Amino acid sequence: MKCVVCKGPAIIDIRRHNANFCTDHFLEQCRRQVAKAIDEFAMIERGERALVAVSGGKDSLAVWDLLVELGYDVDGLYVGLGIGEYSDVSGTYARDFARSRELTLLEVDLPGTYGYDIPTGSRAARRAPCSACGLSKRHLFDAAALEGGYDVLVTGHNLDDEAAVLMGNTLHWHTEYLGRQLPVLPARDGFPRKVKPLVRLGERETAAYCVVRGIDYLVDECPMAAGNRHLSYKAALNDIELASPGAKHAFYFGFLDRAAERFATEAEADREDLRPCASCGAPTTSEVCAFCRLVQRAGGSLPDGGPTAVAVELGPTRARVDEPSALEGVR
Amino acid sequence: MKCVVCKGPAIIDIRRHNANFCTDHFLEQCRRQVAKAIDEFAMIERGERALVAVSGGKDSLAVWDLLVELGYDVDGLYVGLGIGEYSDVSGTYARDFARSRELTLLEVDLPGTYGYDIPTGSRAARRAPCSACGLSKRHLFDAAALEGGYDVLVTGHNLDDEAAVLMGNTLHWHTEYLGRQLPVLPARDGFPRKVKPLVRLGERETAAYCVVRGIDYLVDECPMAAGNRHLSYKAALNDIELASPGAKHAFYFGFLDRAAERFATEAEADREDLRPCASCGAPTTSEVCAFCRLVQRAGGSLPDGGPTAVAVELGPTRARVDEPSALEGVR
Repeated sequence: MKCVVCKGPAIIDIRRHNANFCTDHFLEQCRRQVAKAIDEFAMIERGERALVAVSGGKDSLAVWDLLVELGYDVDGLYVGLGIGEYSDVSGTYARDFARSRELTLLEVDLPGTYGYDIPTGSRAARRAPCSACGLSKRHLFDAAALEGGYDVLVTGHNLDDEAAVLMGNTLHWHTEYLGRQLPVLPARDGFPRKVKPLVRLGERETAAYCVVRGIDYLVDECPMAAGNRHLSYKAALNDIELASPGAKHAFYFGFLDRAAERFATEAEADREDLRPCASCGAPTTSEVCAFCRLVQRAGGSLPDGGPTAVAVELGPTRARVDEPSALEGVR
Repeated sequence: MKCVVCKGPAIIDIRRHNANFCTDHFLEQCRRQVAKAIDEFAMIERGERALVAVSGGKDSLAVWDLLVELGYDVDGLYVGLGIGEYSDVSGTYARDFARSRELTLLEVDLPGTYGYDIPTGSRAARRAPCSACGLSKRHLFDAAALEGGYDVLVTGHNLDDEAAVLMGNTLHWHTEYLGRQLPVLPARDGFPRKVKPLVRLGERETAAYCVVRGIDYLVDECPMAAGNRHLSYKAALNDIELASPGAKHAFYFGFLDRAAERFATEAEADREDLRPCASCGAPTTSEVCAFCRLVQRAGGSLPDGGPTAVAVELGPTRARVDEPSALEGVR
């Protein structure tokens, strides 16, 4: 297996590009795909301040690293969700990465500050865990980005994520979600601009990127996500991709090219009804926003003033981990 | 397992309806679903003459039987495609069914009349076999329906078929096909009205219907279809349906309710460009229609006049096959 660029020994094959790459040209390929996505969808301007939502998994650490490599000014935001050991460990990966690169990491501790964790909140609000978690994170990400004066909020959604969400939205024809499923959501009152620079990279590539770059990340899926529909859509798409390499890319980018705008009306109608939440002031379509309702039902409370997220003291930089030479174990 | 209607012993469970049925109430359920589809989409009026495209498989024989049971005036049309033993056997099933019910079956013999079979035509035209076959059948069905003065052409597409085609069309965002993927296509110059009365029945139900009704059908898939994408989409949807019963129904009917009309423009634009084929007179968007181009490339020729399809002499009615009491072997 030879690198398609330099004919040296390849470490990875990417079937949808019908190409193999050596270590250096694979890294270049990842950077080029991210730069292309940023450029194509006007995600981030030079000189803007970006905040990346960091989970401690491969995607969020890869996108943080890639944006720094590409010369962007990016801080990280980690939200401790109180999902037992999973959350403890994921925070360690986020902090270790920030420390090793001497980057700024902001943190929010959901149980410590809002008085509930995701397992409790999910049960109390009778929402699926992934629903309670997504809702909490979106609220805290938005608030932290706006308070911190960031121009743009970055998430690590990759091509596999976006294709699986798109499959769920088309299987149910959730027309209002289809209208919003875009790689860039522009800023508007009370919401920061949101961008997904990894939409041109598959999750196998972001995992390989981390391994090659010596980035330690939490490999485990969240224990609360087991058996959720999103994972079954990913499995269905993996079967289809295996038979037709490039199917996920064609599905997602074909949607953006030829279908997304047909669903724009519902998404815009939603926006027109926004007003400030009576409790926290965040934009919402109801009297009290869904986050504040969740906090209340979960038996928690909003903190009295103070910033949503605070920068973490990370201590001295540790020595960099040696880069491994092979990708054994990449999922 | 008890029948949801009469509490007698059930022979089939239908998970998406969360219901089990005994033999009689299962047949009633099938008839009700077909009547509902016909009514909901205004497929066939009382007194109209219908022509059903019959392959010898479970779906086309089931829809023919169901329409006759519901009191419609329906003849059958069988096209011999020259796919070796598969075609020989499938024709036998179609003729045996027609003979047993004393129904009229029209036939077209593709190799005998047009001088090519599907394997040859596919290779010569460098089209996938399913593409060459679909093109040939559509042309011959349309021509036979119009020449025979039928009001409507019926096909046996079931919910699994339509959901799998829809999945293929959304995975590729074939917007012009999405605009046409409807259970009824109205008649227009040179095309008969086309309807799919089985869209509310899954293929497991049409197979069970045939077994219960004592209808012998060809169980084998067409040997030329092995490995095609349509079957991989069916497999993906089967996995999703297993985890979420009703997913296929929600996908297809959600599309009809909330998405199909968003793609209508392209489908209508196609129609406006139609003109008669210079060779056979059928409506086409090009100088010579795709069927005539296929015939020519396959080394065949159009017959000199005469009807496209002729009624078959079926001989005396045979004794009815005994109805089996169980559904063992239903796929």
